[in-house]
Amino acid sequence: MASSGSRTGRRPGDSGTREAILAAAAGHFTEQGFRGTTVRAVATAAGVDPALVHHYFGTKDGLFAASMALPFNPADVVARVVEPGIDGLGERLVRTLLGVFAQLGDANPMLALLRSAAAHPPAAQMLREFLGEAVLDRVAAAVDADRPQLRAALCASQVVGILVAREVVALPALVEADIDTLVSAYGPTLQRYLTGEF
Amino acid sequence: MASSGSRTGRRPGDSGTREAILAAAAGHFTEQGFRGTTVRAVATAAGVDPALVHHYFGTKDGLFAASMALPFNPADVVARVVEPGIDGLGERLVRTLLGVFAQLGDANPMLALLRSAAAHPPAAQMLREFLGEAVLDRVAAAVDADRPQLRAALCASQVVGILVAREVVALPALVEADIDTLVSAYGPTLQRYLTGEF
Repeated sequence: MASSGSRTGRRPGDSGTREAILAAAAGHFTEQGFRGTTVRAVATAAGVDPALVHHYFGTKDGLFAASMALPFNPADVVARVVEPGIDGLGERLVRTLLGVFAQLGDANPMLALLRSAAAHPPAAQMLREFLGEAVLDRVAAAVDADRPQLRAALCASQVVGILVAREVVALPALVEADIDTLVSAYGPTLQRYLTGEF
Repeated sequence: MASSGSRTGRRPGDSGTREAILAAAAGHFTEQGFRGTTVRAVATAAGVDPALVHHYFGTKDGLFAASMALPFNPADVVARVVEPGIDGLGERLVRTLLGVFAQLGDANPMLALLRSAAAHPPAAQMLREFLGEAVLDRVAAAVDADRPQLRAALCASQVVGILVAREVVALPALVEADIDTLVSAYGPTLQRYLTGEF
């Protein structure tokens, strides 16, 4: 493929350049997984310089989020929520996620990712690797207890369950519950997964 | 649209009768939802007597389970797990579910139901109604605290999350964890949803 300034004529600011990068990224992430994809390979496939990819999308997880049509980078959100430390982290995680879900409504692109993962094993691998490297590793790094990876994964299982039970299956009692009730139910669960004995 | 002994010639024991009932049931559940489907309507569509449907499949939830290719009726499983009462119910629910998932392996038809629900709103409605009437109402009936429906739904959100995070996304820390570890992590969560303060 071609580098920046190639005969395809893609340069910074060209209309279509950003879209070309996103299309190349979606293909690479789907076929190679998150771990197997590099910014350099995506840049080559899109016919641009890797620096341009970084310019538009930051790191690889930012590129992933944009290529999956997420309106934000989950890695950035988690980094902010984790930053103040382990105290109250469970409640902050739940409150932030419920806020994000409420904003996204029916167009929640995380549901599209889950739907795709349920139907296609390569999509499941892609989601697993992204969650692992961009989200769960950051949560696990905040854990000051044994088995940090298991603790982060337990949290993920409750978060994913909220998403599916409330947004996909739409169980009435969960749809009708207010955010404070859900935070007081789920927050201590995540906190126990992060810091408790089991 | 014929009754038993009609010109379609379907009688108890006829090869194909059971399959005809299941096909009619799948169509009705998908189109009318769980609540909107009656054993009588399914029997009429299959050209058999309602008594034959009951003979093969028991109640409507047994018919639903069979038509969705579930190897057991979740309503029966939940009834057995709930029967000894609220003490230790969270742990019994988790241990039973993990045992069922382990038996089913990759062919877990509950994943097909979830996948379908994620892709098609009518399938989501069907699953929501079935879970509500056949599973969650039974759990809620065992609850001796305020908001029994919310408590049952909170449990469902963690159970669904285990299914998705462990079987669909296949987070390594959850796949590798042994059953006793998972029971000691998740059991108290469900018990708190059922009996705790929040």
